[in-house]
Amino acid sequence: MTEYRTLRIALLGAGAVGSQVADLLLRHGDELADRAGAKLELAGIAVRDVDAPRDVELPRELFTTDAETLIVGSDIVIELMGGIEPARTQVLHAITSGADIVTANKALLATHGSEIFDAADQVGAEVYYEAAAAGAIPIIRPLRDSLAGDRVVRIMGIVNGTTNYILDRMDTEGAEFADVLAQAQALGYAEADPTADVEGYDAAQKAAILASLAFHTTVPLDAVHREGITSVDATMIEAARHAGYVVKLLAVCERLAAADGEEGESISVRVYPALVDRSHPLASVHGANNAVFVQAEAAGDLMFYGAGAGGVQTASAVLGDVVSAARRHIAGGVGVGESTRANLPTVPIGRVITRYQITLEVNDQPGVLATVAGILSEGRVSIATVEQTVIGQDVDAGTAPAGDGSARLVIGTHKAREQDLSETVERLAASGVVERVVSVLRVEGN
Amino acid sequence: MTEYRTLRIALLGAGAVGSQVADLLLRHGDELADRAGAKLELAGIAVRDVDAPRDVELPRELFTTDAETLIVGSDIVIELMGGIEPARTQVLHAITSGADIVTANKALLATHGSEIFDAADQVGAEVYYEAAAAGAIPIIRPLRDSLAGDRVVRIMGIVNGTTNYILDRMDTEGAEFADVLAQAQALGYAEADPTADVEGYDAAQKAAILASLAFHTTVPLDAVHREGITSVDATMIEAARHAGYVVKLLAVCERLAAADGEEGESISVRVYPALVDRSHPLASVHGANNAVFVQAEAAGDLMFYGAGAGGVQTASAVLGDVVSAARRHIAGGVGVGESTRANLPTVPIGRVITRYQITLEVNDQPGVLATVAGILSEGRVSIATVEQTVIGQDVDAGTAPAGDGSARLVIGTHKAREQDLSETVERLAASGVVERVVSVLRVEGN
Repeated sequence: MTEYRTLRIALLGAGAVGSQVADLLLRHGDELADRAGAKLELAGIAVRDVDAPRDVELPRELFTTDAETLIVGSDIVIELMGGIEPARTQVLHAITSGADIVTANKALLATHGSEIFDAADQVGAEVYYEAAAAGAIPIIRPLRDSLAGDRVVRIMGIVNGTTNYILDRMDTEGAEFADVLAQAQALGYAEADPTADVEGYDAAQKAAILASLAFHTTVPLDAVHREGITSVDATMIEAARHAGYVVKLLAVCERLAAADGEEGESISVRVYPALVDRSHPLASVHGANNAVFVQAEAAGDLMFYGAGAGGVQTASAVLGDVVSAARRHIAGGVGVGESTRANLPTVPIGRVITRYQITLEVNDQPGVLATVAGILSEGRVSIATVEQTVIGQDVDAGTAPAGDGSARLVIGTHKAREQDLSETVERLAASGVVERVVSVLRVEGN
Repeated sequence: MTEYRTLRIALLGAGAVGSQVADLLLRHGDELADRAGAKLELAGIAVRDVDAPRDVELPRELFTTDAETLIVGSDIVIELMGGIEPARTQVLHAITSGADIVTANKALLATHGSEIFDAADQVGAEVYYEAAAAGAIPIIRPLRDSLAGDRVVRIMGIVNGTTNYILDRMDTEGAEFADVLAQAQALGYAEADPTADVEGYDAAQKAAILASLAFHTTVPLDAVHREGITSVDATMIEAARHAGYVVKLLAVCERLAAADGEEGESISVRVYPALVDRSHPLASVHGANNAVFVQAEAAGDLMFYGAGAGGVQTASAVLGDVVSAARRHIAGGVGVGESTRANLPTVPIGRVITRYQITLEVNDQPGVLATVAGILSEGRVSIATVEQTVIGQDVDAGTAPAGDGSARLVIGTHKAREQDLSETVERLAASGVVERVVSVLRVEGN
């Protein structure tokens, strides 16, 4: 075991995201230490009510109602309380206490971002907020760093999972807004008070954050044009479908060329339900998923897709920020990118387990399928599907008529070990009934 | 103008990517300075032949054949020569000379990555290589930083544009490998010697880089199982289609649980043509595009999509790294994320220009369409499509029979100014012929 310096982490809030962050910090402590180059010690969790029920069981002694005291002496403060106050006060307190900040609080950043970033700049602290714009989807670093040498022209984002879930179900089921909303609330996809989602406030906050990064410009929340989806009805969705469109709540951030008689570029940031062509990549973003489509002058079209919400998914983005903050504390820079402390062994291809599709040309005789199935079974390769074709004629598997000709067998396997599979294919090739192994292909995905 | 410190940039190589990098550095100098917090001075471009033709016209005085001298005194060295030598020697020389490195050289990193990263660690230099794994797609920072607190389970990447282009055309046209390859070569999508692409060497190098980052493990190139696509024929593709699959050259990086009797996890890294279900997001990656599908324990499924190659696209990733390196030089840390030096004004929604779909209920009388078209035209809103429906009956636009009932008009506009549009819709609503404005929706995308 490497001896690491210990960094003190304070967590503010233990809701859906906070409880998962605490759980992962505690369970993966050793692994995270190797990644960060520092032991990440969860010093405490500040909450309003110590006895409130949590999504995950956590050591009771970590909880406190005294956030102020917990913050003092912490190296990294993770703010997951949400809302403006007391989050704003605590974050500013943490910055002046010398901590780096990790937050998923889009409302706070969209309304008081400048104040917080300025405060951090003054003391040389960092504010990390990968989880604030599109949940688990890494979009902050790509915009801030990877595209820093390019010129972003346009962002179109599906950045609110609840409204995408509602619009997607309205689209696939022809249902009415109110009915789907009620179901979404029952399933936990929508809040009891859905205003922040369905009126586009949540998406507008994220749009302000994305536009600020993309255009290197402070975008105040009231500069974002906002319309929600409450006026979208089944008729509208049906008409959109008829015209080859799907309705999506989009956050659009756009760079505009100088208008006549004006100097310099300007930007537009807006959230509204819009028609998207069904062939556009954004049209196939289903359910509560999010996606951010970015067009840049040099890079062209990019898309980032994933879970836009959810406790454990968002916790992934928060912990990525915690590790980044820790690396900065230890290395004093970007550094430690080349963490190779896991040093896992690479297995040879023979030990890989996947599914296969085997295509064989066999003698078209009775009993051939039984022989082939027997060889597969002996080789520990389990058959999922089989299709037998006599040339020019499809017949049901296993019922091919006797004949002198050839037949083609397409066998889909369950998961098998590559070595078992290749030995089995060799045995098949050597058997009297197989004329030719046409192809052996792995099947990947799911 | 802010006064910035000047950083000296040396560029090694002026091929498809290098010439675009030089061009963007020169053309966007002021903007990049604002982003980086430093003036990025292109000190010179080292090439083998100063007089060789370039994709972009560049000042002749920048060119030199003396890379060694150019490197000395540079703050950032951009290595875009490709290949192992002399790239390796020059990069090590640059590191010991005190420069940070930006490289897109996957062959070099996959074979000598450890040596280079170790050399950089010893002197506190950084090596940036966003462009080395998937061209313009930001994947290095997401894996290294955003997912640093998560556990990557699996990566499935389409990381070679040439082979995806070939397989995609074989799939859509039923063509044979050799024919499509010949066409791809003619169009410049494939090299005269296509071995690196079609035999999977390029993908294997990228797989080694991605697996190293994802699993925090040094993955030597010879640990990557590699198969190319030369054995894929039209019959195989047709059979895959028949079974609901598409053939893709995949780079698969997988974390494996401890096998019986073993301790600890292991990994598998492999490149081969595989069957992918047509409903999988990777199946819809067409042409020369790339995509990296990442499954992580907490974050769930993520996908990163974009251009995997191309001079100017890859230059975007290189310049992002240059700005990151410059920020580190200036701020001594991650810092300067909140660059807001562009400070572009946000325009009100009225000045936004987009397409619209207007749905109206109108009197079903002769001349109605002409009246509506006239109002739109006066309002500077140009009609792209129009569809008129009498209830229960579709008729050609403009030829609806006279009657007392109502008809529905669905009008798709060309791009119009939001303010013109909304004033026009008001005038339509107030006109005698329009009974009801059913909906006005913006059309986004394309």
